[in-house]
Amino acid sequence: MSDPLSTYALKDIKPLLQPGEVIAAVKEALIRHSAGEVQSPLPGQLTFPEVNGDCHIKYGHIRGADQFVVKIATGFYDNPQSGQPVNNGLMLLFDARTGAPRCLFQDEGWMTAWRTAAAVALAAHCLAPRPAPRVGIIGTGQQAQLATQWVAVVLPGATFMLLGRDASRTRETADRCGARVASSMASLLSNSDIVITTTPAAHALFAAEDAHPGQHFVAVGADGPEKQELPPQLFARAGVILTDDRAQCLALSDFGRAVRTGVVLADSDRAFGDMLGARFTLERKPADITIVDLTGLAAQDIAIANLLFGKLQEQAHQ
Amino acid sequence: MSDPLSTYALKDIKPLLQPGEVIAAVKEALIRHSAGEVQSPLPGQLTFPEVNGDCHIKYGHIRGADQFVVKIATGFYDNPQSGQPVNNGLMLLFDARTGAPRCLFQDEGWMTAWRTAAAVALAAHCLAPRPAPRVGIIGTGQQAQLATQWVAVVLPGATFMLLGRDASRTRETADRCGARVASSMASLLSNSDIVITTTPAAHALFAAEDAHPGQHFVAVGADGPEKQELPPQLFARAGVILTDDRAQCLALSDFGRAVRTGVVLADSDRAFGDMLGARFTLERKPADITIVDLTGLAAQDIAIANLLFGKLQEQAHQ
Repeated sequence: MSDPLSTYALKDIKPLLQPGEVIAAVKEALIRHSAGEVQSPLPGQLTFPEVNGDCHIKYGHIRGADQFVVKIATGFYDNPQSGQPVNNGLMLLFDARTGAPRCLFQDEGWMTAWRTAAAVALAAHCLAPRPAPRVGIIGTGQQAQLATQWVAVVLPGATFMLLGRDASRTRETADRCGARVASSMASLLSNSDIVITTTPAAHALFAAEDAHPGQHFVAVGADGPEKQELPPQLFARAGVILTDDRAQCLALSDFGRAVRTGVVLADSDRAFGDMLGARFTLERKPADITIVDLTGLAAQDIAIANLLFGKLQEQAHQ
Repeated sequence: MSDPLSTYALKDIKPLLQPGEVIAAVKEALIRHSAGEVQSPLPGQLTFPEVNGDCHIKYGHIRGADQFVVKIATGFYDNPQSGQPVNNGLMLLFDARTGAPRCLFQDEGWMTAWRTAAAVALAAHCLAPRPAPRVGIIGTGQQAQLATQWVAVVLPGATFMLLGRDASRTRETADRCGARVASSMASLLSNSDIVITTTPAAHALFAAEDAHPGQHFVAVGADGPEKQELPPQLFARAGVILTDDRAQCLALSDFGRAVRTGVVLADSDRAFGDMLGARFTLERKPADITIVDLTGLAAQDIAIANLLFGKLQEQAHQ
């Protein structure tokens, strides 16, 4: 007979997680990941091309931790047509000493969204070309909206501009987020110090020659070999390339596509976590284009699940 | 706002699943798997060597099905020392049209155990050397015990003999299962038409030359590259080798080890599902040693989850 599984709904979870704490936990996890302290095999993926959907399964264990985490996140991009959110999912926490399930977080995909937004904020911050930067965000979905809030936590005074495919949706999202609307891709690229791409696009969103010297790119949308946001040549132009995980980015994201295209070598990146942990000193010229390519790590899922678990235990003992 | 996740405990699940129905559902799923109708990437694995534990994550979708399944199964082999069962886990069913989680089966690993026992029964049956065979089972855990019940469903009149490392545990298990106790490995091998291996062993359980002509082997224990039950040379001696999934067996089980050892080629197997679906005629001599190597498929998890889901829906409409 095993202990019961504790189940928490989104409404129980939401009040307990604040951006600042999640960002700190995710930073620590990214540092430990790049130090090799996290057991996290390549994530699993199922695709549902007939309904434009996919499911990502990430799982991992930080060395020495009492729990391990399995996270299931779905993105069904046609859902809004029937009034349902694109993202859904849940997280499970297991006892790493007995294998017993301990907690189910029915977060409807929000913990994945938050831990991703935390990485985006850290990525925007770590190579921001200047204080209070102008941030251009491509996309109008959950990550675009979170970016306007979470990047502001680490880059106070930042201003935001949005560009989406649907003009009225873009207008509405921008109004809600206190962002401006970009009139065109050219305008967004001309008026942004930092460009964050948050789309499920299957083709490059712009041409590499349209990027500006000194511009910093954070790519978070591509999480499968069929997706693409940044053009391969942008990596060839970049002075600094950071990946959250080299193997995962080679398999799943724009960095891998650039390597397969032959414009950069498979070891031309540095580890994002090593940068966050100040394990190297970056030689960077003001005109350098810089890129952080994010695919999302089980380490981030573990970070947010453990943070939440700790808070729930505190609550239980009060 | 998504629909609530329906949660079912083991006590709700157990009365609904009968061996005969599970075996039929698993047979159908194995046939569809080998026909290429199941999207099921290589399973995920986490290992916890300090506590002799592992976690397997299987996930898949049968073409056209309304649901997809993610299954998490843990095996922590030192758990009995603290009075806890070795196996645990849960299964999740998601809507394949929206990605929303639909059902959580808190089966404590039992659905995995049953769908595995169903495959073992089918494997024992499909190449059984004679009716009412003598079945030798190596191991005394959950799968060994289930084998004595589930093989009897498809092979009426079969008799069972058990061999385990711990004499008193073997005695006790055998008594409970109506099986005899083998006095030694040599005795078990000499007195069995079918040998079923159900252990978490890391080395071959016997030498290939100790197998008898005409003997049929079903290997179900090895589910990771570090595990081993059958000696590679047994595959060289075998007239028929069936695998539940070639890629998975190459990566995870005894067939893969035999291939890496160089004693058989990577295409020397046939698909177990093709055999069950009578997609080929087997040329088999009475003295042939035969092997079915099982690693467990997401298709089996889907089969048992869908069977249960259907029964729960029937119940709800009564």
